[in-house]
Amino acid sequence: MAKTKGPRRPKAETPKGFRDYFGTEVTARKAMLDQIAAVYHRYGFDALETSAVETVEALGKFLPDVDRPNEGVFAWEEDADWLALRYDLTAPLARVAAQYRNDLPTPYRRYAMGPVWRNEKPGPGRFRQFYQCDADTVGAASVAADAEICAMLSDALEAVGIERGDYVIRVNNRKVLNGVMEVAGILDPADPSKFEAERGIVLRAIDKLDRLGEEGVRALLGEGRKDESGDFTKGAGLGEAQADVIMHFVCANEELRLELWAERKGYDKFSPEWNTRLRASILSDPLFSDFQRDAQSLAFWNMRICKFLSRLVSTSETGIEGINELEQIASLLDAQGYGPDRIIVDPSVVRGLGYYTGPVYEAELTFEIKDEKGRPRQFGSVAGGGRYDDLVKRFTGQPVPATGVSIGVDRLLAALAAKGRLEDTAQGPVVVTVMDRDRMADYMGMVGELRAAGIRAEMYLGNPKNFGNQLKYADKRGSPVAIIQGGDEAAKGVVQIKDLILGAKIAQQATVEEWKSQPAQVEVPRENLVQAVRDILGRHT
Amino acid sequence: MAKTKGPRRPKAETPKGFRDYFGTEVTARKAMLDQIAAVYHRYGFDALETSAVETVEALGKFLPDVDRPNEGVFAWEEDADWLALRYDLTAPLARVAAQYRNDLPTPYRRYAMGPVWRNEKPGPGRFRQFYQCDADTVGAASVAADAEICAMLSDALEAVGIERGDYVIRVNNRKVLNGVMEVAGILDPADPSKFEAERGIVLRAIDKLDRLGEEGVRALLGEGRKDESGDFTKGAGLGEAQADVIMHFVCANEELRLELWAERKGYDKFSPEWNTRLRASILSDPLFSDFQRDAQSLAFWNMRICKFLSRLVSTSETGIEGINELEQIASLLDAQGYGPDRIIVDPSVVRGLGYYTGPVYEAELTFEIKDEKGRPRQFGSVAGGGRYDDLVKRFTGQPVPATGVSIGVDRLLAALAAKGRLEDTAQGPVVVTVMDRDRMADYMGMVGELRAAGIRAEMYLGNPKNFGNQLKYADKRGSPVAIIQGGDEAAKGVVQIKDLILGAKIAQQATVEEWKSQPAQVEVPRENLVQAVRDILGRHT
Repeated sequence: MAKTKGPRRPKAETPKGFRDYFGTEVTARKAMLDQIAAVYHRYGFDALETSAVETVEALGKFLPDVDRPNEGVFAWEEDADWLALRYDLTAPLARVAAQYRNDLPTPYRRYAMGPVWRNEKPGPGRFRQFYQCDADTVGAASVAADAEICAMLSDALEAVGIERGDYVIRVNNRKVLNGVMEVAGILDPADPSKFEAERGIVLRAIDKLDRLGEEGVRALLGEGRKDESGDFTKGAGLGEAQADVIMHFVCANEELRLELWAERKGYDKFSPEWNTRLRASILSDPLFSDFQRDAQSLAFWNMRICKFLSRLVSTSETGIEGINELEQIASLLDAQGYGPDRIIVDPSVVRGLGYYTGPVYEAELTFEIKDEKGRPRQFGSVAGGGRYDDLVKRFTGQPVPATGVSIGVDRLLAALAAKGRLEDTAQGPVVVTVMDRDRMADYMGMVGELRAAGIRAEMYLGNPKNFGNQLKYADKRGSPVAIIQGGDEAAKGVVQIKDLILGAKIAQQATVEEWKSQPAQVEVPRENLVQAVRDILGRHT
Repeated sequence: MAKTKGPRRPKAETPKGFRDYFGTEVTARKAMLDQIAAVYHRYGFDALETSAVETVEALGKFLPDVDRPNEGVFAWEEDADWLALRYDLTAPLARVAAQYRNDLPTPYRRYAMGPVWRNEKPGPGRFRQFYQCDADTVGAASVAADAEICAMLSDALEAVGIERGDYVIRVNNRKVLNGVMEVAGILDPADPSKFEAERGIVLRAIDKLDRLGEEGVRALLGEGRKDESGDFTKGAGLGEAQADVIMHFVCANEELRLELWAERKGYDKFSPEWNTRLRASILSDPLFSDFQRDAQSLAFWNMRICKFLSRLVSTSETGIEGINELEQIASLLDAQGYGPDRIIVDPSVVRGLGYYTGPVYEAELTFEIKDEKGRPRQFGSVAGGGRYDDLVKRFTGQPVPATGVSIGVDRLLAALAAKGRLEDTAQGPVVVTVMDRDRMADYMGMVGELRAAGIRAEMYLGNPKNFGNQLKYADKRGSPVAIIQGGDEAAKGVVQIKDLILGAKIAQQATVEEWKSQPAQVEVPRENLVQAVRDILGRHT
């Protein structure tokens, strides 16, 4: 072809927001998911794999960001249907539970692991395809199902290498929050559609406590809030007394600490004054951090926080029901040995998703890591979930109780990496070098023997002319051993075996004596090849 | 909400051509892929996982069906880019090899497993999302790389449970085919762009030999072919002599059999007459099926088929090079013990894809299964691949040699199912029934103990009112054991353990004596729960 200019070449690039995973990035994740799947399996959960593609109408619009209900998914029109990539594993499960409702066991326990896709603006560490790893029980109204998921989550975290004490599972109940809303006068059990907008603003405000602080949340409960850039966000318009109720709930953990502090100091009655006048000095009291330290104090804490919340929602039937459920979950878990050192009631857990209807839970890693600026911070949440009794109803019209958890696979992997707990799957192959291009069959025979013995091995398949390149390749692959057989060795019936790990060590630090006493290269009879390699590999494990 | 009519409910359906995979369908596939991955790993291949989404321009248009070059993928516009779901794992690899060419080792051996998507008309057993499992070597020009892939494919098939003798890997070389085209006068090495259309028609005709038979292929090489429905397909327009050359290649296996038959009968020269006059009688001679029966005859066959092909392409440099490569592959494999009983040269292997440039290979399962009408037929192909030296060049302009194989995961799984070789991952959980709703904590304690002992177990989480439903549930789950503890048992400190497998057997076939001697239900002290369950499970494995 006599062309002066070739056609324009395609760009070799992943689309924006997508990435590739290489070698141990793939195998370490797989090893972790296998460990989690084993736990899920032991709990009686069955695997389910739905397709990546769903109809847009089956997926519904349940993405956390309610400001953009039409965005967030990758969707396209196909013949007359709109199809989309799934954005989580819960929406497909709801579809499956409805589609196969006559065939599946009731309750149906299922786990699923796989990629999900979000059509969001990518950012550092934020990708548009990522893994989730879910377990859900569909068709069980009892909070025993929620308790079971919490216990299983705890087992799963320990199975992958997060030690007890390095995590805590926080449990709350949307019913308690609804009770608080009732007490604050923005939820009318007789007409749940009233004040829907206000409740939406309140829910989002509470969820931003970490970022905005108490003052910011309070502003959003009232008239609204102006941020640093001057932008104004309209608030829920609650009165002072209404906002107080919500803030008691939002600050329940701190308020209970104040209350316990008062008790220890001998004040027998809770006073709202603590909250304003003495707060700063109390917060700096070392005693303050003492209330959740050991198993005993944690059990006490669990009991007291339920009591605190009861007081708050005492006039709401739903609220009281929520507290009872929390107490029941805690006691069911305790019976199996999952005490409050692992699973604790925490009113600050709200969960962003709108569809939760009962218990919600979140697994938080409590050890410190360094952030990008080197400052210590807690690792934070790696999994969360809750009860969503209305998702299947969308399809069938019949309410179907369901509860489940989703593990953030990438965050948990990052946590394991931070703790040095990632399974080491990085062993490079033994490399049989090619000294003599005409004797490829001999080299392949060596490789064949090694592989048959279960040893990861390969023959160098690049251009063999430059022997240095072959050793550079072995280095790049992380090879533990290189095999060399030139014409002389072949004639003598021997092979050279180079211990590359030892060689690297010697090159870095060895004295002349060590060099002599531990030669990094040995010559062995050809028939001893496998045994000699096995010996060296054994030395390095 | 006082609405007279609810909103339209979404349909609980997978999109057309997609399906869900339940329980063992997921775990059996995973077990098989794990076994294959272990083989790939042992051969020094590293895992790679690219995202499901690629730019349309990076994917290129390499789907087998060249009649519809713009179709076959799911694509959509996103901002200014066209994105698409990958249709195979080779196109993304080519993109990766180009994108990271400075960081990857050379050669780069990688494996990948995961779903791919085809926007094709779905049919029975044909889905628009399915798994592939690939291994490729990028950057190795030597046919040792092709030989290695063939050996690895052989090991992978045996690792998942396809026994030696139940499969054969057939190897051919596109260069031989190109040589044939040269000899037939439809490929000019000096100007490869000439006769491109004719070669396309010839390639597709050859690939349809199975379906159209010799006559049909010959018609397509000439003026064209009218099918049963009367539709006319235009042919390549070759003359008689040109078509003869192609047909000698297409029918090489049969012609060599005729030749060997002639030799055995004492005729010392090949005669074209066999092909027409005596053919029918020779084909029915029992001797005819004898030429590829044992290791010795197979080795002889391999040697002779190469000789036969050499004669055919003797005037083409490319053709002769192709034969040499085939001989080299066979001898490299032989050196590792992969003889012609497992890997054989077969000119009938063409492979549909247009991008192959050298050796092509295909794994075929040789045992018989029954088709949907109960007729015996050979299982057929489960994997295939070949050398494609130009895919990376699309991006970089530099030729990069590459070769690799793709295993049809669903077909291989179907083969294992047909052979009864699917790993049994179906063990249901022990079910702890709920006799007394107030003692959930006790039941969860039992479940907790069983799980801690590594036994798959669950508490019944449905409505416990109807005990019969609990046992029906256990039955549906395939539970081996049910645990029962009512108030009386709790007071006595015992549990009832029901052996459901034995129970089912007894119900089907036991005599009264057996019933008495092997009670399917035993009462044990509560503290012996785990041991008693373990004993029963042990009895059934």
